[in-house]
Amino acid sequence: MSTGFGFDVMARDGRARRGRLRLAHGVVDTPAFMPVGTRGAVKALTMAQLHDLGADIMLANAYHLHLRPGDDAVARAGGLHAFTGWAKPILTDSGGFQVFSLAGRRTVSDEGVVFQSHLDGSARALSPESVADIQSRLGSDVAMVFDECTAWPVEREQAAAAMRRTLRWARRARDRFAAISSGRAPEVARPTPGQAQFGIVQGSTFKDLRDESVAGTLAVGFEAYAIGGLSVGEPPEVMYDIAGHTADQLPATAPRYLMGAGMPNDLVEAVGRGIDLFDCVLPTRNARNGQLFTRDGPISIKNARYAGDDGPPDAECQCPTCRSHSRAYLRHLFMAGEMSAATLNTAHNLHFYLDTMRQIRKAIEFGIFEDFKHAYLDRYTRRAHSLT
Amino acid sequence: MSTGFGFDVMARDGRARRGRLRLAHGVVDTPAFMPVGTRGAVKALTMAQLHDLGADIMLANAYHLHLRPGDDAVARAGGLHAFTGWAKPILTDSGGFQVFSLAGRRTVSDEGVVFQSHLDGSARALSPESVADIQSRLGSDVAMVFDECTAWPVEREQAAAAMRRTLRWARRARDRFAAISSGRAPEVARPTPGQAQFGIVQGSTFKDLRDESVAGTLAVGFEAYAIGGLSVGEPPEVMYDIAGHTADQLPATAPRYLMGAGMPNDLVEAVGRGIDLFDCVLPTRNARNGQLFTRDGPISIKNARYAGDDGPPDAECQCPTCRSHSRAYLRHLFMAGEMSAATLNTAHNLHFYLDTMRQIRKAIEFGIFEDFKHAYLDRYTRRAHSLT
Repeated sequence: MSTGFGFDVMARDGRARRGRLRLAHGVVDTPAFMPVGTRGAVKALTMAQLHDLGADIMLANAYHLHLRPGDDAVARAGGLHAFTGWAKPILTDSGGFQVFSLAGRRTVSDEGVVFQSHLDGSARALSPESVADIQSRLGSDVAMVFDECTAWPVEREQAAAAMRRTLRWARRARDRFAAISSGRAPEVARPTPGQAQFGIVQGSTFKDLRDESVAGTLAVGFEAYAIGGLSVGEPPEVMYDIAGHTADQLPATAPRYLMGAGMPNDLVEAVGRGIDLFDCVLPTRNARNGQLFTRDGPISIKNARYAGDDGPPDAECQCPTCRSHSRAYLRHLFMAGEMSAATLNTAHNLHFYLDTMRQIRKAIEFGIFEDFKHAYLDRYTRRAHSLT
Repeated sequence: MSTGFGFDVMARDGRARRGRLRLAHGVVDTPAFMPVGTRGAVKALTMAQLHDLGADIMLANAYHLHLRPGDDAVARAGGLHAFTGWAKPILTDSGGFQVFSLAGRRTVSDEGVVFQSHLDGSARALSPESVADIQSRLGSDVAMVFDECTAWPVEREQAAAAMRRTLRWARRARDRFAAISSGRAPEVARPTPGQAQFGIVQGSTFKDLRDESVAGTLAVGFEAYAIGGLSVGEPPEVMYDIAGHTADQLPATAPRYLMGAGMPNDLVEAVGRGIDLFDCVLPTRNARNGQLFTRDGPISIKNARYAGDDGPPDAECQCPTCRSHSRAYLRHLFMAGEMSAATLNTAHNLHFYLDTMRQIRKAIEFGIFEDFKHAYLDRYTRRAHSLT
């Protein structure tokens, strides 16, 4: 159905996999991190900068783009790739997470969600079908199904209800996606004919609910499967445990996407439990707040100790920021409120994440992932708190 | 005295000059526009982006850098070039304009200016000598003298007093510069031994006061001469007339710098009256407000008419923004408040200014400056108001 889609596992090392994902607009080497470009742009970066950092895929958000500039406008421009100038693959999150974050401003029923736009308060509605339509118009390479995401902690009963609604929605989303993909919904613009659709497993931190969700989602059948409802406040060990437990039951032939995670050490831990794809706002958001990731843990560039520090953020880093600028200059830009502080910090942090993934892929290829993992985590976590 | 400095006029066309300025950190082809990087950074751009746009020289501000991060800190880092990572020439404005803008928070005497820092309200003092010291520590290629800048309109008596104080200060600034340059002030760090110092002609829009200022400033003697106190609200024709009148009396062998001007048409008009150097915040500030310069006049990217416009800001422009992005996307980024809107708009506007200067230099070389000027102004001004 999705002509552009394919996934090959080229090497394994324990539960870690080294794969290659074929999407309509190109190939993504996995394990991969997807920079977050919610509104069709990674905050503080140009597309040229994102490209130069070596990103192979960008994430955008259907909910945000539906509200502004509108999926119709994007479709008229030829889809997200033509509209944004980003030629490589794009994954669109459905916006389930965003809509369910609008506590008090949304009403959920089996039909879908009625909510108030965070932009102008106007009444809006989303359903599994309309979200599939929106993503078809956006023309992303990968469309995520519309899911009901729960907070943490959550009562078992509530988690079960949301998971089962997500399953019912998954069937409807897949049916609509099939109709669009097979030409039975010609009224919906389809700038990327080879679009793939990923299902989302829910169930919070209840393993039996996760099991039920996996079984039901596999029964619907998608190009690949994501693990939602984690990285929402639960302890890291719980996230690792549930992600690993869920990944173990997902097909070995499809990529596994842990949504919304995480810190650099989370990526390494999750790859060791069979995860192939990641997205997270931390490298970009924290950059704007002055936090820079380094091999020895994060540092806060605001700290007065860096005012006279002529060294780069990370002495071993090959990113454009580290090759050109000192901690002292970056601190000056941040304290002066210069926008280029956000740009330079974001470029560094994204490079750090993308480079971590490159190291992970190499380690799996060489069959030394466990050694790599221990060395990486030991160094990253040892001095984290003393340096910030 | 300033070993690094030199200026050659390679071609003339009417009063327009095609020159080459040799500074401690490199060569600047004139007429030239200097992007404004007040605090050691052009707002919304990285140094790599500024370099890629083809800028040959950047302007920074001694007043701002003195307050933060401090000229001592910059000197300890090895000067502005080492601190910022900008390897090409830097001109530092003295901060006279900024200090005199602090109406109600500064007291002027012949000794200098006592004022309150705009950052923390702390009491500060600047004198012609201390500003020379600050700029020596900053290590710019060109240091501007500390001048008393008047607003417009201004009473003749007040303009005369400020101009004559500027002359007295020019002598003191030059004496201090000479002491530093010749090694008689070893306590002042001097990361750029070949620093040049430019004098500033004042006198508002009174031609006889301008004449007196030129004579007095030439009597002190500087590597080059700037025309201050214009582009502060007077009508464009008055600015052109005073700039031309003043330029005609300045030595043909030295570059002439019209401070703070202007719109693209102002640059073309002023070159035709013998001006060689420009700086202005308009291309960068207006970019952040959504104004884009085009060959057919400025446009406001906020305008709803651009929501569905697939064309680049300027169809003939070769800048990275125009080569990659549509008006519709740039409008979306601006309306969404994405920082990259500022970056992409700034890159375009600076490219437009730098490209205007390239066209000007070419026209002078070919001896067709008058034809170029008429064609440029005719196109730029014809539709300016209909398009915005």
